[in-house]
Order: sequence, then structure tokens, then C-alpha cells
Amino acid sequence: MAPTFTQITLAERPKEHILPTTFARKTVPLASLKPGQGEVLVKLHYLSLDPAMRGWLRDQRSYMPPVGIGEVMRGQAVAEVVEAGPGSKFTKGDIVDGPFGWAEYGVFPDKIASKINAPPGVDVLDFLGPMGGTGMTAYFGLLDVGKVKAGEKLVVSGAAGATGSMVCQFGKKRGAKVYAIAGSQAKCDWLENDLGVDKAFNYKSPTFHADFKKTVGFLDVYFDNVGGELLDFMLSRLNLRARIVLCGAISDYNKAKPSGLTGYMTLIAQRAKIEGFLVFDYASRYPEAQKDIATWLRDGSLKRRFHVVKGLQNAPEALNLLFNGGNTGKLVVQVADTPAKL
Amino acid sequence: MAPTFTQITLAERPKEHILPTTFARKTVPLASLKPGQGEVLVKLHYLSLDPAMRGWLRDQRSYMPPVGIGEVMRGQAVAEVVEAGPGSKFTKGDIVDGPFGWAEYGVFPDKIASKINAPPGVDVLDFLGPMGGTGMTAYFGLLDVGKVKAGEKLVVSGAAGATGSMVCQFGKKRGAKVYAIAGSQAKCDWLENDLGVDKAFNYKSPTFHADFKKTVGFLDVYFDNVGGELLDFMLSRLNLRARIVLCGAISDYNKAKPSGLTGYMTLIAQRAKIEGFLVFDYASRYPEAQKDIATWLRDGSLKRRFHVVKGLQNAPEALNLLFNGGNTGKLVVQVADTPAKL
Repeated sequence: MAPTFTQITLAERPKEHILPTTFARKTVPLASLKPGQGEVLVKLHYLSLDPAMRGWLRDQRSYMPPVGIGEVMRGQAVAEVVEAGPGSKFTKGDIVDGPFGWAEYGVFPDKIASKINAPPGVDVLDFLGPMGGTGMTAYFGLLDVGKVKAGEKLVVSGAAGATGSMVCQFGKKRGAKVYAIAGSQAKCDWLENDLGVDKAFNYKSPTFHADFKKTVGFLDVYFDNVGGELLDFMLSRLNLRARIVLCGAISDYNKAKPSGLTGYMTLIAQRAKIEGFLVFDYASRYPEAQKDIATWLRDGSLKRRFHVVKGLQNAPEALNLLFNGGNTGKLVVQVADTPAKL
Repeated sequence: MAPTFTQITLAERPKEHILPTTFARKTVPLASLKPGQGEVLVKLHYLSLDPAMRGWLRDQRSYMPPVGIGEVMRGQAVAEVVEAGPGSKFTKGDIVDGPFGWAEYGVFPDKIASKINAPPGVDVLDFLGPMGGTGMTAYFGLLDVGKVKAGEKLVVSGAAGATGSMVCQFGKKRGAKVYAIAGSQAKCDWLENDLGVDKAFNYKSPTFHADFKKTVGFLDVYFDNVGGELLDFMLSRLNLRARIVLCGAISDYNKAKPSGLTGYMTLIAQRAKIEGFLVFDYASRYPEAQKDIATWLRDGSLKRRFHVVKGLQNAPEALNLLFNGGNTGKLVVQVADTPAKL
């Protein structure tokens, strides 16, 4: 039998939660893939799963078009060049990253792939974590949008997630008091004991609001990954000139109609702001962040954790982990049986 | 009978709307007022009524303490110095402005009063309008917070109000396309015909949303005086890097629980922000704004309208005009029978 590979395509747009019928599995002959001029055939090793993917399933005006019905699901990945087409700048065996999508193999133009040259102490998988979109989001969101300063009170939601766990650590490095919010005691323990935040709060605790008010009081920067009710609560906890960095709103992504923010008038009294951002706008400055982050990975001062799900066929179900609190750290799918060194 | 004067005090905190029982009228012997060292006795000519007053009635954390029960209601006014105490820098007959409150007479320290020297073409009453807090709010909110640029699309809510009508005109002077939102056809006519906005929309029209989408499409700066549902709608109308200047939220001031903003996730996709501000923070820069505004008043290019209610006893009821759309332009109470020249 001729060799085949798996692709996962969008079958229907979810109204709220991602369902077993949201995605479809497609088996494709490998022989159908042949890199042309300036193209490469890649074999995926790891696929990144990100909360933003939920937004790409919505048919609405956004920063990029939604994934079309029947199209391979979009996603960032680390892959190996299996065959370089004529004139390609890549060589067989190169490890590259790029938006290769939910497929075991694919052919792509050179220009969407980047060769990974992992510096000492950095794994290729880090290019889906601290050295990739996650790390860049945390770095520029906190320092450029949030402009956190030493001594300020930084609150991070989704703190045990891929981005949140980086934001917490970058905040400590900048000299801020860091207060983390997560959804389980185990996550809070990891944040306090391993990542060194000043205090972690379990938002599911019945005394969460009272505990937060007592310990934190008011905040200077809120790096928000979850939106919804927690964001509304934080609007009542703003110091003068507080900045809310709107990175994500994972609590609202699966809702047909998001929870409303009722506390926005505090923005006036406190001369505060809510600002959204997208990491792509900082692409030209990634090297400056990656230089810092590589240094911290090498000296061991920056911790990261990967939550690895094996098998591309498990990607749809794994995606739900992001919305039900099932992952700690960066969620990835191991697509290849024997991926490049973790 | 010894001469007396009227004060209006806060009797109870309104839960939602301002009621006849919210304020109380107090008659005080004039002889009880005697300016001491560095103080003045003033007679109020005009009192400013502002939406922010609703916020001062709430017993909650804000940029200044709430007005206390039994205290004279706070408010900015233009007054005449009737008697200068020993060592006062003022002279009988000086026209001054300051936060003299809802009273026909009062004694105040010199430091809270400022002598008005109206330049040619400027009336003393303008110091409660374009040359006062209203004008300063519009000027710094639009230019410093909103940073509107020539050619950009500026949308102004509460556009026929004191601040909104200034924002519209400052926007035109800056070269923006100005879209005004108001609550009646008469207000829209005034905005289009007298103030020169590009298009005015009546938000009460059943076709408002469709009309707005068709004519404006997406906006660059939204100067918001009303909050609530209109703000939520505007969140769906943001251009890339749009700025929402949160000046007021008059639609929500009388509500125990404000309407929620559900469309905030657009802030991420459009890299946009909502920013609150308070004009007091710009106090050191008022002279630069007043220089521009005085020039525009003198050359007739800046229009202003005053809605004058006679008699301090009518101030409580007049305050409601701000919330039911009853005023066009700047709402003031004429406190003195024969005030300084209008």
C-alpha cells in the first residue's frame, strides 16, 4: 500500500465548545506532495496549540481571515525538511518552524519557514514556547504594552499557561511584585515554588476575591489572558494609571455572547487603560527578545514546562485542554514518532 | 428681617435617578458669612452643571471623595467678590471662578479662586464652557489622549453636549472627518449646520446602526461621553490602532449596575485601546489650550451654546436635563439676578 499521511481539516464552525464534529481527519497519499521551485516538503515534529485558534474558527472580521471549511487547520509547528525543491534555500534535515498547520506532512514556500538554530541550552521545542510566539507575546505584551516597572504590582491571569508562565517570570526579572491567578492548587504551587511569583491565587476558591483584595489591594499592570468576569473584577482593583494588557479572553472564547464588562467606569477615575495587542506587530523586534530569553534559558533562570500530547489525531481533543484548564505550561502535539531532541 | 441666602445640600444618595428628595434647600443668614485672613466672600453669578456630578453622589472609591450627606453640593461657578478679607489678593468687584458649590454666597480661601480676565471676544460665562473645564476636557481628551490626526475618522457621542460640541469642532480644526451622535433631529441639525460636522446621527433612529455602518464604516478615534450600549457598538467599529477616549458614561451614571461591554475582544484584533482620563491632570497646561480657544472664540470660528436655567433652587431638577437629553450645549444655572455680562 502506498504511504499516506494525516491532515486535520475544519469540518464545521463551532457555535460554542469544540465538538467531535468540529474537525475531520483526512488521509492523503504522500506521493501527492512534491516541492516545486523554492519550496520544501516538511515532516512535522511538533504542533503548537494556542487559545487564539478558537478565534480562527469564527467567521468574523479579525486580524486574519478565518480558517475555511474543508481547509487544513492553521497552526505553528516545528518540522524537518524531508526534501528541498529546486532553488530552495533549505537542505534536507534542516529543522524549521512555520505555520505548517495540522498535518503530518506538507509542502510550503521557503518564505514561510525559518531555520531553527537553537543556541546552547535551548531546545528546538522552545521555538514553540519561550523562543516562539508564546515567549514573544509575553515579552512585548508585558514590557512594551504594559510597560511594567520595578516595584509595581503585576497581576497575571492564566498564569500557569504558556504565555502567563512567561509573563510571571519576566515580571519578576523586571523587579515587579507578581501575583498569579490560576485554576488549581497544583498550578498555584508550581507558580509559587518553581516560578517564584510572590503569591498565586486559585480563582476557583470561594475566598478568592477577599483573598485578592487583602493581599494585593490594587494593581498597576494586569496582564489578562482570560477576560470575562475576572477582567471585570480587576477593573475594580486599578491603581492610578493602571494598564490592562489584553492578550486573550479565554473564558469568553467558547461563548456565543461574551460576559460584559460592567466596571469600565473605573478607567476614568483611575486614568487607566485597556489595550489590546498582537505579537506579529513586533516581528522585527523578536531577535532582541530571543537574545534575552536564550540567555535566561541557558543560565537556568527561566523555567518552562511543556504539556505534550502524542499523535496528530489527538489535536482536536487536546485543544479543549486550553479551555478547561487541563494544561500547565505550553501545550503541544507531538506529531512525529521520533521528534528532534526535546 | 435679616438677609438670608440659599444653599443646596445633599440630603440622600440616589440609588438610580436623582429624585426630589436627593437634595435639600437650606436658608442661611448672610451675616454668618465673614471672610477671614486670605479669604473672600463671593456672590455666585453662574453655576456649572456637569454629568460628573452624578459620580460625586456615589459613596465609592473615585478620584475625589463623594459629597457628604448634609454638605453643600459641589460645583464649579463664576462669582463676584463681595468682600475681601484681610490680606486677600482679591478686590471687591473681581469676577472669579472656582468650586464654590451650590450656594448663592460663600466664603472661601483665596487659593481656590481664580480671577477671570476675559480676553476680547470671550465672555465670563465662557469660563464655565470652552475656557473652563468643559473646553479643557475636550481639548486634552481629544488631542492628548485620542491623539486624533488629520484625515482620521473621529466619532463623538453626546455630541450636542457641552464637551461633545467642543470635541466636534476641535476635531474639524485638526482636519479629522467628524461624525457626531446625538439624541434628536434638532441637535443633529445644529451639529451639521452650525458646528460643521461631516455627519450627525440620531441614535434614537431605528436605522441608526445601519446608517452608521454605511456612512462611517470603521473609526479611528471614538470620544465617548455616554458609555453603555453605544460604546459596545463602537467596539465593533474599530479600525486598526483605534483609540477610545473614555470621557464619560452618562447612559450608565443613573444605573445601579452599568450595561456590560461584550465587544471588548475587538481591542485585541485591532490593537486598539480604551483609555480614561481626568482633565485635572492637565491643569498646568490649561493656558496653552485657553490661548487657542480664546483665539477661536474671538475670530468666531468656535461656536458655543449655553442652556441657562434661572434660580439656584432649580439646580436639582436642571441636573436631570443632562441625563434625559434636555440640554443642548453647556448647561448652567444663573444664580444671581443680574449676573456679569453674558
